[in-house]
Amino acid sequence: MKNTFGNSVTLTLFGESHGAGVGAVIDGLAPGLTVDEDFIRHQLLLRRPQGAISTPRVESDEFRIVSGVYEGKTTGTPICIMIPNENVQSGDYPKGMVRPGHADYTAQCKYHGFQDPRGGGHFSGRLTAALVAAGAIAISALQENDIYIGTHIRELAGLEDRPFDDLVADVETLGDMVFPVLDERIAERMQEEILAAAEDGDSVGGTLETVVTGLPSGVGEPWFDSVESLLSHALFGIPAVKGVEFGEGFGFARMRGSEANDALRSENGKVHHLTNHNGGINGGITNGMPLLFRSVVRPTPTIHRPQASVNLATMENETQLSGGRHDPAIVHRARVFVDSVTALVLCDLLAMRFGTDYIAQI
Amino acid sequence: MKNTFGNSVTLTLFGESHGAGVGAVIDGLAPGLTVDEDFIRHQLLLRRPQGAISTPRVESDEFRIVSGVYEGKTTGTPICIMIPNENVQSGDYPKGMVRPGHADYTAQCKYHGFQDPRGGGHFSGRLTAALVAAGAIAISALQENDIYIGTHIRELAGLEDRPFDDLVADVETLGDMVFPVLDERIAERMQEEILAAAEDGDSVGGTLETVVTGLPSGVGEPWFDSVESLLSHALFGIPAVKGVEFGEGFGFARMRGSEANDALRSENGKVHHLTNHNGGINGGITNGMPLLFRSVVRPTPTIHRPQASVNLATMENETQLSGGRHDPAIVHRARVFVDSVTALVLCDLLAMRFGTDYIAQI
Amino acid sequence: MKNTFGNSVTLTLFGESHGAGVGAVIDGLAPGLTVDEDFIRHQLLLRRPQGAISTPRVESDEFRIVSGVYEGKTTGTPICIMIPNENVQSGDYPKGMVRPGHADYTAQCKYHGFQDPRGGGHFSGRLTAALVAAGAIAISALQENDIYIGTHIRELAGLEDRPFDDLVADVETLGDMVFPVLDERIAERMQEEILAAAEDGDSVGGTLETVVTGLPSGVGEPWFDSVESLLSHALFGIPAVKGVEFGEGFGFARMRGSEANDALRSENGKVHHLTNHNGGINGGITNGMPLLFRSVVRPTPTIHRPQASVNLATMENETQLSGGRHDPAIVHRARVFVDSVTALVLCDLLAMRFGTDYIAQI
Amino acid sequence: MKNTFGNSVTLTLFGESHGAGVGAVIDGLAPGLTVDEDFIRHQLLLRRPQGAISTPRVESDEFRIVSGVYEGKTTGTPICIMIPNENVQSGDYPKGMVRPGHADYTAQCKYHGFQDPRGGGHFSGRLTAALVAAGAIAISALQENDIYIGTHIRELAGLEDRPFDDLVADVETLGDMVFPVLDERIAERMQEEILAAAEDGDSVGGTLETVVTGLPSGVGEPWFDSVESLLSHALFGIPAVKGVEFGEGFGFARMRGSEANDALRSENGKVHHLTNHNGGINGGITNGMPLLFRSVVRPTPTIHRPQASVNLATMENETQLSGGRHDPAIVHRARVFVDSVTALVLCDLLAMRFGTDYIAQI
Repeated sequence: MKNTFGNSVTLTLFGESHGAGVGAVIDGLAPGLTVDEDFIRHQLLLRRPQGAISTPRVESDEFRIVSGVYEGKTTGTPICIMIPNENVQSGDYPKGMVRPGHADYTAQCKYHGFQDPRGGGHFSGRLTAALVAAGAIAISALQENDIYIGTHIRELAGLEDRPFDDLVADVETLGDMVFPVLDERIAERMQEEILAAAEDGDSVGGTLETVVTGLPSGVGEPWFDSVESLLSHALFGIPAVKGVEFGEGFGFARMRGSEANDALRSENGKVHHLTNHNGGINGGITNGMPLLFRSVVRPTPTIHRPQASVNLATMENETQLSGGRHDPAIVHRARVFVDSVTALVLCDLLAMRFGTDYIAQI
Repeated sequence: MKNTFGNSVTLTLFGESHGAGVGAVIDGLAPGLTVDEDFIRHQLLLRRPQGAISTPRVESDEFRIVSGVYEGKTTGTPICIMIPNENVQSGDYPKGMVRPGHADYTAQCKYHGFQDPRGGGHFSGRLTAALVAAGAIAISALQENDIYIGTHIRELAGLEDRPFDDLVADVETLGDMVFPVLDERIAERMQEEILAAAEDGDSVGGTLETVVTGLPSGVGEPWFDSVESLLSHALFGIPAVKGVEFGEGFGFARMRGSEANDALRSENGKVHHLTNHNGGINGGITNGMPLLFRSVVRPTPTIHRPQASVNLATMENETQLSGGRHDPAIVHRARVFVDSVTALVLCDLLAMRFGTDYIAQI
Repeated sequence: MKNTFGNSVTLTLFGESHGAGVGAVIDGLAPGLTVDEDFIRHQLLLRRPQGAISTPRVESDEFRIVSGVYEGKTTGTPICIMIPNENVQSGDYPKGMVRPGHADYTAQCKYHGFQDPRGGGHFSGRLTAALVAAGAIAISALQENDIYIGTHIRELAGLEDRPFDDLVADVETLGDMVFPVLDERIAERMQEEILAAAEDGDSVGGTLETVVTGLPSGVGEPWFDSVESLLSHALFGIPAVKGVEFGEGFGFARMRGSEANDALRSENGKVHHLTNHNGGINGGITNGMPLLFRSVVRPTPTIHRPQASVNLATMENETQLSGGRHDPAIVHRARVFVDSVTALVLCDLLAMRFGTDYIAQI
Repeated sequence: MKNTFGNSVTLTLFGESHGAGVGAVIDGLAPGLTVDEDFIRHQLLLRRPQGAISTPRVESDEFRIVSGVYEGKTTGTPICIMIPNENVQSGDYPKGMVRPGHADYTAQCKYHGFQDPRGGGHFSGRLTAALVAAGAIAISALQENDIYIGTHIRELAGLEDRPFDDLVADVETLGDMVFPVLDERIAERMQEEILAAAEDGDSVGGTLETVVTGLPSGVGEPWFDSVESLLSHALFGIPAVKGVEFGEGFGFARMRGSEANDALRSENGKVHHLTNHNGGINGGITNGMPLLFRSVVRPTPTIHRPQASVNLATMENETQLSGGRHDPAIVHRARVFVDSVTALVLCDLLAMRFGTDYIAQI
């Protein structure tokens, strides 16, 4: 479905970096959910470039809810959110010149030159503003059901944040952090690494780790609609995400079964697991433990260094050098994209499992 | 769509471990493709347990093409492949006792006790026989278009195979290998590790690395139907896969943009990339370089060691101890699952992009 | 999705008329539903050609439930039903010769000669055996929820059956009728018309009228997933159905709004409608009144009369004359196809609205 | 997918009658198609109420293409079209009172009172403005491939227009007609019937007949993605459409096979049919003849006559009397909705069959 994902709850994304604007349509959300515009603004703020570690391009991100909300509540019909573009400098992007690491060349292969070349067009990270606004509504809906999502930068430039510990406290702490790292000293050192890369005209990548608490067991499907399948499908839809792992993830390659299995215990008529190596999912289905997964965000492709490339207008080999503004890191901002698609996938899974009204507790 | 995936080319999986059999329906494949039953048998053989490093359960895997093939060619209508079950020992699986690491508990949460408990029922790796038979047809179809898929064990128990080198030669070599490792000495040491785990009643995991050559550029979509999204969706549908990464994958967290971007070069009117850090995909779309990705397979959950667990029939805490046959490793066999879903996803992507007849060169 | 339909509950159909067999996979049905094999047999019997008004080809229709049923109940995982082919006479169908009214020519256009030509191949009405077996399970599931489907021949050769009157009684009466007509005298006259056509080597069409009682209100969607959209999608999937209308249907073209609207009345805190011109659906959503719709079944294309046609092997104009067995009417048998797809669509709609367990009352 | 339909080319609809506006997202259309804003305006004009036979509410229907079009051509990425609402009189619609024939009651059942009640909210015919704007782009794309769609009022209040005759000329004639009837005298009499109904405070329905020329053969699927299935799915998504028939449609109930089959003829190496009783479709697949189908539009539900109804706020029985503006007929305006969804479905079918670039002749 190209720019749409989901089954019962769907998201459709549209827009370009330097066109009229970007937007999203969420369909299938239950009626009667509170739409908190302040929380949408909060989430958009987390997405926005911040201070020295980000691009100087600052958009006001004024969103407009076009449909699907009446008297502050979802109506149950499609919610369209529009965010107009401002502060556009198209001159930064000469046509024909491929920026390595970007989608310029693949867009040419696919769209034969008809793509909007300005600022990455439809491939621009700008569209994540619409994703985040839409995701904020899904995050709020989950919170009304005591389901919480928290994401921190687990690794950046070889530096590692401490693992999740007290989940409730950690998730709450992360909620408002612009640079979501649990260990303050590591946060500082990570930002120093970003600034060092920026001084070199370069950029860095990083790994995000996400936890979801409060999800009921029995959600998801064996085989192709496993929770892992649906989440990874959406997570890999975020530009720059190049890896997704659940629980111990790639660490499983160095483990034995006796270390990888999660033992169970029955207490007061309820079953829980003693460990969470499998990230809350067995056989594609939630087991009642917190979801735990990591996504890796590749280094921002735009850098201020000469790169060997091709001018597709002339088919000449040329050195590409970006002059415009850019982000030396987006991993801290990508956190909110991850939370957004996670929330949308979970709303979808819950609606498929328990019906369209479930999330609204109707 | 639960047990179905794909858009234009779809796969539907059905069956249980100890029921009448397992099967698959592939729909949307072009008419006129040669169906090579010997190659299906070959692929099923690669999937079968082999020697000391695998379970003693040996099925003959006699498949039957029920529909969609006429005079040795695909008709263009749904292909159903059935594989009856044999050699079934249901006594090994007492009802109510949860095997840690398996889907026993989550199946109970989802199916309320109505699931077939024998040998994991619908969650059994047995269904991969149907997946492999279906995948073999897709792999053949791609080969007719000079698109080749090769997978090796990249890592197992801390041991690393050499990376891909001469892709054409390596992919060809891997085609017939029961234990797909490029460096023979590493292969031996990996098998020793598996045997050592088996002696301890334990199991090991591992990482598979896959390359696809010959894929045209311009295939896939920005955002939610990125090649990464569709492949990971299908790969995470394979039981035991808990991580998927493309190109440098999680290594991107320790890289800078100048190391992560792939420079381009124009030669004789054609563009290629000088490196392949992004695994052949930019902005979700193929760039003409080989696809490169890795999937991690968690250690087989069944082990011959006592594990703390719960009997759901009584809700008592009990020590679980598997007596039946089991695999100390499935990563070498999982290779053919990875190849199969990869082939099916690629057939789907090509059909979406170039039409339903494309793969048959009609 | 080609041979699959549905969202939360899906049906996949496969097979050919003269191949190994036909089959269906139903996925997404709740666990714990009783699977009544006698009722499946009963429905297959209604589908089978009967006496002088039908084709002499008689299959035993021995079905086999391959998966998804355990100890007589659905497991919640895919149910595959297989029906092997028997009594096959391929000689009746010379290759290349187009039978007017059949899909022979369009199959050639689409499948380029690779289609199975024997007996219509995948286009054969034979596949409806699998559809009916699958539908029987869905019909049973609905009945457990007091939702009943009844279909009669409303019109055949200018003869009209009486309209539905006492719905409960009428639906029950129709359940076991091989020739489902409410007015016995009309039934006799309709059969005379069929025999008269048969004597002329000809065939007849007819209109089926279906009622569904017990469906809750609030099911379906505005716009593109209206109950009308989903039902018609499935109904037009039945070969020979060429028209579908809801409520007054095409009669609305001769009505005024004051005649077409259904007035409402509140009684004891419940709302009902005083008439049912709109067939139980307003704005795409069920209104609590019985669903009412009609489907037209075109005359069986196979006739024993010379027809101008083309031999695609030679591209010569030739007179086509069918020698094989054929049905002078299938409208009475098509009734059970209509009931089957209706039941599957309703199970899907209910699962989407109220969750996957709803139909099983879990 | 609720408010989205299509597979390779999709349409998503959003908005409410008295909210900020309505809009549509078309995804999957080929890049490089000319977007003719004048033609969009032309189509919107055909949709607008006209003169005495329509509602006095007149919107300027100023649309804005938000995304997916660059330098007058489609980019290949999602096209969002927005149409802001103006001229809104919400006072006409008291909350709680059900208007018979509308979706007021079913919306309450589904959305529990959270739906936007103003002017029908998301159920309003106002959303068809977005549908028409989107459809115009699809219609243009088909025209570039010499595929033309034409629709006339076949029947209204017992009056019948002449059948299609010279298809090319008829389709061209209809293109600009506000009241699309081929026989001028019938057109006058139909309009008299509409005015007569209006004087009685009443409304009328009618039947639309559509022809599509130039479609290649071999498009569509057997079984559930038949051309009939996909078209009817979309057509029944249009509010007020309550019946769809192909070729002879319900007339087949009174025909014999020898009258219903279309004979074939080979001429100069090409096959054509001598008649078109089956509306250009056999076995769900196009046969190269023009598509021919009819849709019935029920009488506009809003009338100026007292109707028995219920006030859902009080659950009292009350007489409902609409005071606001209304259309005594929408069948002439619905023509452009039919053309729009038809074009979108055909673009989707062609993209599925021949690839995403086909329609752009790239």
